[in-house]
Amino acid sequence: MKQSEFSWIDRYLKPLAFYPGSFNLQDDAAYIAVSEQAALVVSTDAAVAGIHFEPTADPNLIARKTLLAAVSDLIAKGAMPFGYFMNMFLSEETLAESWLQAFTRGLSDVQQQYKMTILGGDTVCTKQNFAVDYTVLGWAEQGGMVQRNTAKDGDLLYVTGTLGDSYLGLQCLLEQMHLSSADRDWVLQRHFVPELRFELMQKTRHFWTSSIDISDGFLADLKHILQASNQSAIVDFDALPFSEIGKSFLNEDANAIWKLLTGGEDYELILTIEKDKKGAFEACAATTNTRVSHVGHLVSKREALLYNPEGATIVLPEKLGFQHF
Amino acid sequence: MKQSEFSWIDRYLKPLAFYPGSFNLQDDAAYIAVSEQAALVVSTDAAVAGIHFEPTADPNLIARKTLLAAVSDLIAKGAMPFGYFMNMFLSEETLAESWLQAFTRGLSDVQQQYKMTILGGDTVCTKQNFAVDYTVLGWAEQGGMVQRNTAKDGDLLYVTGTLGDSYLGLQCLLEQMHLSSADRDWVLQRHFVPELRFELMQKTRHFWTSSIDISDGFLADLKHILQASNQSAIVDFDALPFSEIGKSFLNEDANAIWKLLTGGEDYELILTIEKDKKGAFEACAATTNTRVSHVGHLVSKREALLYNPEGATIVLPEKLGFQHF
Repeated sequence: MKQSEFSWIDRYLKPLAFYPGSFNLQDDAAYIAVSEQAALVVSTDAAVAGIHFEPTADPNLIARKTLLAAVSDLIAKGAMPFGYFMNMFLSEETLAESWLQAFTRGLSDVQQQYKMTILGGDTVCTKQNFAVDYTVLGWAEQGGMVQRNTAKDGDLLYVTGTLGDSYLGLQCLLEQMHLSSADRDWVLQRHFVPELRFELMQKTRHFWTSSIDISDGFLADLKHILQASNQSAIVDFDALPFSEIGKSFLNEDANAIWKLLTGGEDYELILTIEKDKKGAFEACAATTNTRVSHVGHLVSKREALLYNPEGATIVLPEKLGFQHF
Repeated sequence: MKQSEFSWIDRYLKPLAFYPGSFNLQDDAAYIAVSEQAALVVSTDAAVAGIHFEPTADPNLIARKTLLAAVSDLIAKGAMPFGYFMNMFLSEETLAESWLQAFTRGLSDVQQQYKMTILGGDTVCTKQNFAVDYTVLGWAEQGGMVQRNTAKDGDLLYVTGTLGDSYLGLQCLLEQMHLSSADRDWVLQRHFVPELRFELMQKTRHFWTSSIDISDGFLADLKHILQASNQSAIVDFDALPFSEIGKSFLNEDANAIWKLLTGGEDYELILTIEKDKKGAFEACAATTNTRVSHVGHLVSKREALLYNPEGATIVLPEKLGFQHF
């Protein structure tokens, strides 16, 4: 009998989580107070060839994509990346010298960019598809981890960057979409090497009332914030940010927007900000190189999840994002 | 081209480990100083069905064996278990309600015994064999983590419990050995549910000059201490501790002893103690329910790894324990 990840986590794993900083396993990271000043924020993220990336992809890109996906949780939670533990389940192919060399070069690139270090790991040689996971550690001030269940009625809704480029990259990779060479390179870069919003986090995290990174999809991850915070949202779809390539794609057909909003792996941030901090937050964000878009605001939970600015229910597709099961 | 785990870790991963507390990835755990008083000791351990346990084994026992193997590293390093992150790669069979229920009950048993909590995790549904890994966190005092590279010339060599029972359990499981029902149950218990030496650790860790838990095999893990500490050892094989069932097995043939010393998964501890602390350590150990056996002492590195008390080289089997690759 199959069941959704969330239902069995609720039933069997949640009762095993006694520590307040594990938030009943409902957030993307745990918060471990380690002194009167400091806390460690810890998250873990697993990826399997054939599910999270193509087995034949460049090992350098596999390493960067999978480690960045894990580090993204730290950035979203307002923590400074520090180090990671890695478990590798190596397949026959990935035991090749050249493969391991390229993979570890990818790790090294991410380490340098985010000033992290490997802290430990385990490796197992299997006859199965390659899999890897990372348990990432970051530092925060006491009380400094931003949760997903702390958004409030009236908070403004923001999203960073542009949505759906990673989905377009995946379509190119799967030969489902054909773009010019430059456009293809750009969306593939967005797919494999997401730019985490590190500088924005450092400069504006004190404004965030809640946050999440978009791994499953914009709609799915927005739902995570709304459900955890007991809110609905008024979303102005005309304000949602898309790249030029994304906008061209939107012109193709009416369903295109749902693909961009549910494709996932954007690793952009969904943030909520108190209404009266709008000016201060936007001014602070403007000192970084990060685009932030004000796309709506929250209202106490209503019947539907999303409404348009005119108050009409937004009818959502059945699948809001990547489903783990 | 295949290569050993250690050679590629040395070549590609070691250069990525900048933090002093990662000990160049040469120990079983990392040491993260978090305040002037306290440190976190963190270790990660992966297990795959068909390699580390039989896919058809009782899921309750799979959970206990795999989580205990990870917690064992904390005990060996002198840290108080606190919590763990778990990544599960679920196969079709393990998605059954009854399987997940039994598995999580096994986790719960270990949590209660060692006063731990789950802190977070990730789950992926695959079409492959079940795999699981744990990143375990424990608390230590500043400087309180016991390393493997700190044994000194003249230190006495101790081992806890009895050696090779887990190997005998595995042989029963594989139907390679036939014992009475009571004996079979006992060695299977030793195989699946190792008794970690928690009380001994709490009471005697301040005596330990180095330590390691026996996961790969007594000889392989002793070699890890000796190589890391630049030592050889004089070992009195007559003093090595075996259970009654182990002793019967030894009588069967001359090679039997190597099977017990290289079988691995004992999760007993190899400890070194300063010579003049012998009495105090043994008195302290005697207040616990843990058997400790004085089996030799260390000498500055010589040509061979092990010598008998008469000074003759002990000729070892080619394979000293479980090989990761």
